[in-house]
Amino acid sequence: MRIEIICTGDEVLTGKTVNTNFSHISQKLEDVGLAVRWGTIIGDDREALLDAFRLAAERADAVVVNGGLGPTVDDLSQEVAARAAGVDLVLDAAWLARMEEFFHRRSRVMPPNNRKQAMLPATAERLDNPVGTACGFALDIGKARFFFTPGVPREMRRMVEEQVVPRLLARSGLQTVIHLKRFHSYGLGESHVDALLAGIEALAPGGGVKLGFRAHYPQLETKLAVRGTGREDVRRKLDPVAAELRRRLGNFIIAEDDQTLEGVVLTALEQRGWPLALVETFTGGLVAARLAGLPGSEQVLRRAVVSRDLAQIAAALGEAGAAWAGAAGGTAAEAAAQAARRASGAALGLAVLVDVDEGEDRLEFGGTIALGIATADATASRRARLLGGRDWLRLGAVEMALDTLRRRLQGLPLDERTDFERV
Amino acid sequence: MRIEIICTGDEVLTGKTVNTNFSHISQKLEDVGLAVRWGTIIGDDREALLDAFRLAAERADAVVVNGGLGPTVDDLSQEVAARAAGVDLVLDAAWLARMEEFFHRRSRVMPPNNRKQAMLPATAERLDNPVGTACGFALDIGKARFFFTPGVPREMRRMVEEQVVPRLLARSGLQTVIHLKRFHSYGLGESHVDALLAGIEALAPGGGVKLGFRAHYPQLETKLAVRGTGREDVRRKLDPVAAELRRRLGNFIIAEDDQTLEGVVLTALEQRGWPLALVETFTGGLVAARLAGLPGSEQVLRRAVVSRDLAQIAAALGEAGAAWAGAAGGTAAEAAAQAARRASGAALGLAVLVDVDEGEDRLEFGGTIALGIATADATASRRARLLGGRDWLRLGAVEMALDTLRRRLQGLPLDERTDFERV
Repeated sequence: MRIEIICTGDEVLTGKTVNTNFSHISQKLEDVGLAVRWGTIIGDDREALLDAFRLAAERADAVVVNGGLGPTVDDLSQEVAARAAGVDLVLDAAWLARMEEFFHRRSRVMPPNNRKQAMLPATAERLDNPVGTACGFALDIGKARFFFTPGVPREMRRMVEEQVVPRLLARSGLQTVIHLKRFHSYGLGESHVDALLAGIEALAPGGGVKLGFRAHYPQLETKLAVRGTGREDVRRKLDPVAAELRRRLGNFIIAEDDQTLEGVVLTALEQRGWPLALVETFTGGLVAARLAGLPGSEQVLRRAVVSRDLAQIAAALGEAGAAWAGAAGGTAAEAAAQAARRASGAALGLAVLVDVDEGEDRLEFGGTIALGIATADATASRRARLLGGRDWLRLGAVEMALDTLRRRLQGLPLDERTDFERV
Repeated sequence: MRIEIICTGDEVLTGKTVNTNFSHISQKLEDVGLAVRWGTIIGDDREALLDAFRLAAERADAVVVNGGLGPTVDDLSQEVAARAAGVDLVLDAAWLARMEEFFHRRSRVMPPNNRKQAMLPATAERLDNPVGTACGFALDIGKARFFFTPGVPREMRRMVEEQVVPRLLARSGLQTVIHLKRFHSYGLGESHVDALLAGIEALAPGGGVKLGFRAHYPQLETKLAVRGTGREDVRRKLDPVAAELRRRLGNFIIAEDDQTLEGVVLTALEQRGWPLALVETFTGGLVAARLAGLPGSEQVLRRAVVSRDLAQIAAALGEAGAAWAGAAGGTAAEAAAQAARRASGAALGLAVLVDVDEGEDRLEFGGTIALGIATADATASRRARLLGGRDWLRLGAVEMALDTLRRRLQGLPLDERTDFERV
């Protein structure tokens, strides 16, 4: 099945808005084995839209259109769709009632121009929008089936997932149960993981598992798209592949599916009832911010002290801080972690000390990271050297700090070498 | 002039990479008054690329193609461009020499497959790439002039700015000196600023100034694109508009052109020789991180203490911290700022205390921000209530904290009401 995505709107065409809707839709289709062949971006212009719809109707079997379903005069999708299909716009009374109810629940009166959102091409099938007033619709134009979706990302995402993907799968004749299993790893590069996982797809009985990656430094997402005849079949195919994947990537897997590294750390701290204290230098508060962004972190993150000046950190840790004056490297990091723990009454202390190179910020610029971790009865540290410029070094140090917390909490070795380190 | 942008590559088509190159190129053209009519995204596929080039050659006058100039087998732009233009690929010996020199300077031998990057269509004009091995080129296909640019963002940006835009302006017959002046503001919404600036373009003698916006909450970028016959003419047109814009937006302008809010704050602190101390609660270290990300911040950011527990903050501030136990709201924020300043020996103290609402995270979720600022001889505070969900509240509090520092350092009133506040 040849699929085209058409994104509409002056905001997207002029680059004012980065087109994340396109990549989202394309990824969602790719994840279930549907490949997109063309992407088109077009402004809020009747003739240009009509040309784009006609061209897509000729070359594609299915077309996902995004945007142009709003209440204002520059929202043209219904009108141009009806023209391209050669049918009239008619009022969808049921949707109008839904919209009026939508406003009513918010104690507001529906503005008259919203009525436009209930005008659909006569031959259209309505696609539900449970979270907004822009209803989607499906429609034949020429030989192709068109699916019109709203530009608001939250509304688009839900409609693509619940309405568009199932219809596309049904039309494609692909088996319709698709499951996407995701693993997040830290410390291994994409080509390394690709090599480690060679041949893994073949472990699925009868096939149907497709391996894919998405890198966002310093993490890597490894995806298994599983196609089966039903939930049971999917599990049967996925289980041996997932088990082998976990075995091969081992301790480098930091989270699965919708989990995040900071979420895994926070949950582990909550489960142990371990309050945390942090000391940060070059990372400037970013380790704290990753955890503090999560609900519930206020119960766990007891205190973070941030400074590039170790004397300032010692002062903020009071008497506990005085103990490590003069230490260096891993010893200093362990002492700082222990002092932070003691000063705040936390169960676990983590210190991220970074010795930054001198000189101009360039690709060869880097630093040496000393991570110290302390509980009441033990301290440990790890050291690593990272290159790649200031921002890269900072990102890497933050991730390594969170991963060191995870490894400590999960009882894993702290010093497994990552692909990002230099000697 | 009708312009099309074609972005190539499986990474972009499958959504694995968000297409920021498209929005960058489109914005750059828009900024100089060149409107883009079509955007096309196509994978690394010979036939699909050929179709896309032929279609663009028919409907557009100028086409910017991005990607596909690399050394690997799936980089097809030169080959398909030559086919579409009906000419052969020929070796550009000068570029080959440049590439060999490029590798030589890095003490490496050029891999044989890089030679491919010096093969250009016979009728092409080479476009220089001073920062990489992928040279660009311009070429007539049908009635349209095509400009081929590399997919690596850094290389693309430079080539678009230095090579493509001047050529497009020359072809378009537009006056060729274009200057983009940018103002960054915090605290006013886009529609408010739009209303405040009504009629401002008309202040340019002889016209030629175009007003535009780019919103990225909580900041707004206001752009003046000035077209003139030369540098002097541009200044003559821009000056009265810029002066009036500064008058109307007043203290809400936080920075201009490539400046950032945190950069302005850091520079002002450096100029005064004022070390800074921070106290953060719900913002979790993000205020510190914004400053710590800048070179030179280590001389200025003396200490930041982060905790959701005021007792922890007081403990980290030692004797100075004990002074404000029991205070609340603005008083507590001022006391915390003063204690942080004293404990660290900084000249300026800032405390960001946030009282977060109870309950589920939704659009109506919010919090009350109390900002305290202290020098040796004075303290001040500002309070504000923001809604919009946890992340929105956090972003807003970080920005307001940095803006409060800026206002204090520039001697401006701290309590001018922003559009984002609720009563």
